[in-house]
Amino acid sequence: MKVTASGIWSDIVTIRESAPLVHNITNYVVMNSTANVLLALGAAPIMAHAEEEMDDIVDIASALVINIGTLSNHWVRSMMKAAARAANRGIPVVLDPVGAGATRYRTETAQEMVRSMKPAVIRGNASEIMAAGRVEVRTKGVESQAASVDALEAARRLSAETGVVVCVSGAVDYVVSGSGVLKVRNGHPLMTRVTGMGCAASALCGAFAAVNRDYHLAAAHAMTVMGIAGEIAAARSAGTGSMQVNFIDALFCLVEEDITRLMKVEE
Amino acid sequence: MKVTASGIWSDIVTIRESAPLVHNITNYVVMNSTANVLLALGAAPIMAHAEEEMDDIVDIASALVINIGTLSNHWVRSMMKAAARAANRGIPVVLDPVGAGATRYRTETAQEMVRSMKPAVIRGNASEIMAAGRVEVRTKGVESQAASVDALEAARRLSAETGVVVCVSGAVDYVVSGSGVLKVRNGHPLMTRVTGMGCAASALCGAFAAVNRDYHLAAAHAMTVMGIAGEIAAARSAGTGSMQVNFIDALFCLVEEDITRLMKVEE
Amino acid sequence: MKVTASGIWSDIVTIRESAPLVHNITNYVVMNSTANVLLALGAAPIMAHAEEEMDDIVDIASALVINIGTLSNHWVRSMMKAAARAANRGIPVVLDPVGAGATRYRTETAQEMVRSMKPAVIRGNASEIMAAGRVEVRTKGVESQAASVDALEAARRLSAETGVVVCVSGAVDYVVSGSGVLKVRNGHPLMTRVTGMGCAASALCGAFAAVNRDYHLAAAHAMTVMGIAGEIAAARSAGTGSMQVNFIDALFCLVEEDITRLMKVEE
Repeated sequence: MKVTASGIWSDIVTIRESAPLVHNITNYVVMNSTANVLLALGAAPIMAHAEEEMDDIVDIASALVINIGTLSNHWVRSMMKAAARAANRGIPVVLDPVGAGATRYRTETAQEMVRSMKPAVIRGNASEIMAAGRVEVRTKGVESQAASVDALEAARRLSAETGVVVCVSGAVDYVVSGSGVLKVRNGHPLMTRVTGMGCAASALCGAFAAVNRDYHLAAAHAMTVMGIAGEIAAARSAGTGSMQVNFIDALFCLVEEDITRLMKVEE
Repeated sequence: MKVTASGIWSDIVTIRESAPLVHNITNYVVMNSTANVLLALGAAPIMAHAEEEMDDIVDIASALVINIGTLSNHWVRSMMKAAARAANRGIPVVLDPVGAGATRYRTETAQEMVRSMKPAVIRGNASEIMAAGRVEVRTKGVESQAASVDALEAARRLSAETGVVVCVSGAVDYVVSGSGVLKVRNGHPLMTRVTGMGCAASALCGAFAAVNRDYHLAAAHAMTVMGIAGEIAAARSAGTGSMQVNFIDALFCLVEEDITRLMKVEE
Repeated sequence: MKVTASGIWSDIVTIRESAPLVHNITNYVVMNSTANVLLALGAAPIMAHAEEEMDDIVDIASALVINIGTLSNHWVRSMMKAAARAANRGIPVVLDPVGAGATRYRTETAQEMVRSMKPAVIRGNASEIMAAGRVEVRTKGVESQAASVDALEAARRLSAETGVVVCVSGAVDYVVSGSGVLKVRNGHPLMTRVTGMGCAASALCGAFAAVNRDYHLAAAHAMTVMGIAGEIAAARSAGTGSMQVNFIDALFCLVEEDITRLMKVEE
């Protein structure tokens, strides 16, 4: 298990050439930005949530991304149905337990999803991963009060219990599985001030998992690409408005040399 | 039936001066960008979907745009109710059958809407138009696998059967009615990598149909303006993030000379 | 009651340092832009609407913003539940009666909310404030046909009857309470052509009310900051697309000297 610039680049080329369909059942806040981020990478996004079409959509998708950012019971039912079909078809499911820890409803929904969905990857901030992993946590809304390292133990245990790849986002991203821990040190503080950057990271995990069946590597590749595009964008941005625009441009224009020059991943 | 720069410009001036209210029942992904595109053109957008207020909204609107991008049963009921009122009032309905062909639910919903809504204009990509017109189609999500010319026969038959103006979007846009076929060769490949550009085109069809009761011309005018604004924006854009921003700026700043210089429309 | 640059700046510093959690139950169109505007100011946004988690979210929030832009019955129930909890906890509620006057459903919902929610601040355009205050009004969608001054009498009466701070937005913003009327002359016409600017203003009222318990001042501070950021952004914008981006940058980069130099507030 080794993250290399050529390995990341190879995944990107595959995504750009095959345009894998990524099915997102995500929150209202980030649907537009998530779709644009997936398109900028080269993937094909679809957003759909009606129970009536969950099976049909999953049947043509290469990955499923479940994000509970603005959850409600109707949507949870569709998420469960889509995940069951994805498991049946063997396509990867990425779970983003947005706001787990902030309310009982989110925490319980996230824990139930971890148990029943058998996701390939769970990605969240420290509070969310701790809550999904049944660790008592204090949180304030959808922002984490804890550093990502604080959730490392919870991530390890969650991964050991379920076999899932767990990705804890923060100033350092930890990507955890039975094979070990990868640390991604890319990224920029300005990313935390643009809504939906975490959700975009989960969507990218879906796109990489669609083309790379080593989900630990796929998640690490996604987080590295997020961080690098964020660094390139931040250097050009006057504030968080232009940051959102420049991030999509950076992702769209990414070349292998950017990755070679900027990647900071440690085992 | 002839598309001229002065004809397009006359519609734009009317829109800018009268700010027609365009009622959109559209998908979650594009609500913000659709509203901004309509505002940039000079129209007044309203997004509303509650059954309780469908009649009241349609009663003050000059056009209704129905888009099934993230459909569900509750919303379909409101769409049907709004379209019935629009028919009653004689205001134009534009139907965008997003993802028809991708799932049975969407295909059947789109076909039912074509039958019962009596839209003035149907706009979609090749797959969507074929699916709406009951032609067997293979699709991948919301992107068309077929070129727009492949759907020309289906568009002709659909228009002949229903009397609706059918617009097939693609590298070339075909606008079809009993009066013939108009081909719009404006546009830029970068537009396909920004989410919601098709939805924006449908919304513009609504705005032009609000001020020009020749719906074949109205749709052709809308598609030409989309394409020209896309070309102007692409020339200034570093990627798909800035493309989305520049497209709205280009639409907002459009002058008659842009249209005269850039329009590529053939009978 | 006096608006000063140092008073505004003091609130901004408090927001940036304490990042108050602002709970938004708002419309689909503006969720992304509202979240980004709150983040740019320094606040922490959360969007959530499920009845199951309303109490838990309100319990960790410092302000609640209710916006009926794309209302439906399910959401109204959650809004009522959240407002009741907010009243119980004593955190400020800001009500944005989007489109009141345009449909009976919105008008009646807005009037019922004014009665039962006991908001700290109501912010809307002239038509919306008149409709919320039971004045007969002609409206076209979500834009006001009336100037803000036309609603001043209705705002005064509404405030006198309910004790709420009423803010009427327009070319001049009037912030009305039993203590008098503040007139904010900041802002730029380009702001009216970007969707969600009014909704952003209401969200900023929530952020300022979270840190300043003089709600009349809080609302005036919010409207002044909106207007100043809008003026700075407009001076740099080629159209309404870049306006949306530059507005967020301007808010993010705001310094005290901008406020001192640009503020135009009269008693």
